[in-house]
Amino acid sequence: MVINDTESKSSIAVIGLGSMGYGMASSLVRRGYTVIGYDPSPAAVAKLMAAGGATASSPQEAAQGASVVLCVVVNSAQTDAVLFAEGGAFPVMAPGSVFVSSATMAPSDAKRLAARLAERDILYLDAPISGGAAKAAAGALTIMASGSTAAFERATHVLDAISTKVYRLGSEPGIGASVKMINQHLAGIHIAAACEAMVLASKLGLDLSTVYEVITSSAGNSWMFENRVPHILDGDYTPLSSVEIFVKDLGILQDIARAERYPAPLAAAALQMFLATSGAGMGRDDDASVARTYASLSGAPLPALKSVS
Amino acid sequence: MVINDTESKSSIAVIGLGSMGYGMASSLVRRGYTVIGYDPSPAAVAKLMAAGGATASSPQEAAQGASVVLCVVVNSAQTDAVLFAEGGAFPVMAPGSVFVSSATMAPSDAKRLAARLAERDILYLDAPISGGAAKAAAGALTIMASGSTAAFERATHVLDAISTKVYRLGSEPGIGASVKMINQHLAGIHIAAACEAMVLASKLGLDLSTVYEVITSSAGNSWMFENRVPHILDGDYTPLSSVEIFVKDLGILQDIARAERYPAPLAAAALQMFLATSGAGMGRDDDASVARTYASLSGAPLPALKSVS
Repeated sequence: MVINDTESKSSIAVIGLGSMGYGMASSLVRRGYTVIGYDPSPAAVAKLMAAGGATASSPQEAAQGASVVLCVVVNSAQTDAVLFAEGGAFPVMAPGSVFVSSATMAPSDAKRLAARLAERDILYLDAPISGGAAKAAAGALTIMASGSTAAFERATHVLDAISTKVYRLGSEPGIGASVKMINQHLAGIHIAAACEAMVLASKLGLDLSTVYEVITSSAGNSWMFENRVPHILDGDYTPLSSVEIFVKDLGILQDIARAERYPAPLAAAALQMFLATSGAGMGRDDDASVARTYASLSGAPLPALKSVS
Repeated sequence: MVINDTESKSSIAVIGLGSMGYGMASSLVRRGYTVIGYDPSPAAVAKLMAAGGATASSPQEAAQGASVVLCVVVNSAQTDAVLFAEGGAFPVMAPGSVFVSSATMAPSDAKRLAARLAERDILYLDAPISGGAAKAAAGALTIMASGSTAAFERATHVLDAISTKVYRLGSEPGIGASVKMINQHLAGIHIAAACEAMVLASKLGLDLSTVYEVITSSAGNSWMFENRVPHILDGDYTPLSSVEIFVKDLGILQDIARAERYPAPLAAAALQMFLATSGAGMGRDDDASVARTYASLSGAPLPALKSVS
């Protein structure tokens, strides 16, 4: 892709340089964009500088003169802070510029943020992401986005640079957030189910590698089973995605379901297992650590622990 | 495959001619085997005769002179009846012949049946199946089998004729049953989760076909989500696999887990939803009918009902 003159004149701000934000920022640098990143962690900032990006000392400084601000933080509270706290981006963003919000949050929060930005004619794209750190680094994310035609028009060149698939889900903020929550609803249950079933397999004396081979070829398979069970087999709980992510996301899901008067007993059961795993001290470990909770509760053996967070 | 002289001399009995048993029997007929089937339903018997199989008036008559007896019923109680009730196969099976048991059952039941058959030197293969009616009809099942080397040696030519993959999981009866239960554990949770998430999506006002498209390309996907959600989108609950199957299988799973002192809260929550769906009168409908229970509990709309059992 060649960026055109208008696009190249302005900078792109990336607020939040964790594994996802860094991947998105470095993908943009590789495509020739002027990227200004911000993160409270000096190590994260140094990493982006090494990759050819510029950095700023606050979200406000990063957003100054940016046509698009990508906000890659973990929840709505952090998104609020990026915009409205001291040193926040909101006061300096130009009318007509676009705030692309990637945090997983309740649809009501996405609507609230969009309405607030509209007061100053700043466009809002509700754009949660899926794909993990490796795909972020490769510019190969999936984006579940909703927002006005104008917001899409101004942000599409940036979205295309960081993703291989952009779902345009509608013109209202909140739709992207809703679809992302449905994905997290399923993903969280599937991780907990994978752990529940594999530790039961161990309790029954089965060979876990064989069970993995059979299940991944059978109707019991899921994307998460296939992806997370190898962590259990290897005893490697180095966090690729931590237990706390699903404590957060299934927590938001429960809040939404309660507000909608919608019973979600499977999501509720899964959340309890993530909570127990975090409560036992494994919150920062890989989310496959839910298996260690089942093992602890049942006395079932697991492959030897090799690594944690 | 060409069957050799020794194999072709004796017949193969297939007890239980439902969608799975009929598929297995007709696959064997196509491969040149002499197949004698039994089912209490005259319609099932007539269907096998039309496909070129012979039929019998009892399991005992079907098993007379058979080198391999395939038992394709739904649970251990029916398997017990096939063997030990009046007109049962046990008294007439020859020493050295093989009883291949496909019903999903607790590992302890598989061990008990194998021990009882061993009293008369009848071999036992613990051989649950996976794949559904279409794959059964095509001779393309997956078989999760355990048993003695002798049992495998005598039954392999039959297993090869009805399946594309035979997992040889060990020499002890009960291992096949255990691995099948782990698969059903996951499959049952994934069906209930798919229903829980899709009806929430409806409650949130999302377009369900779009959600299906996004999720099947995302980390929230499962084999069951991909397979069952189209039934919800089409409003078609004609049973391909009925609600009662998972009432049964998650019930067995809970019995096993309780006996093992193993907590399985996700499987327990999923079972409640299958029970509620059956209790509301949908037990014989397709298992995606769990979505109708969530809709009923929450007031969320679903695509118009087109067909049930």
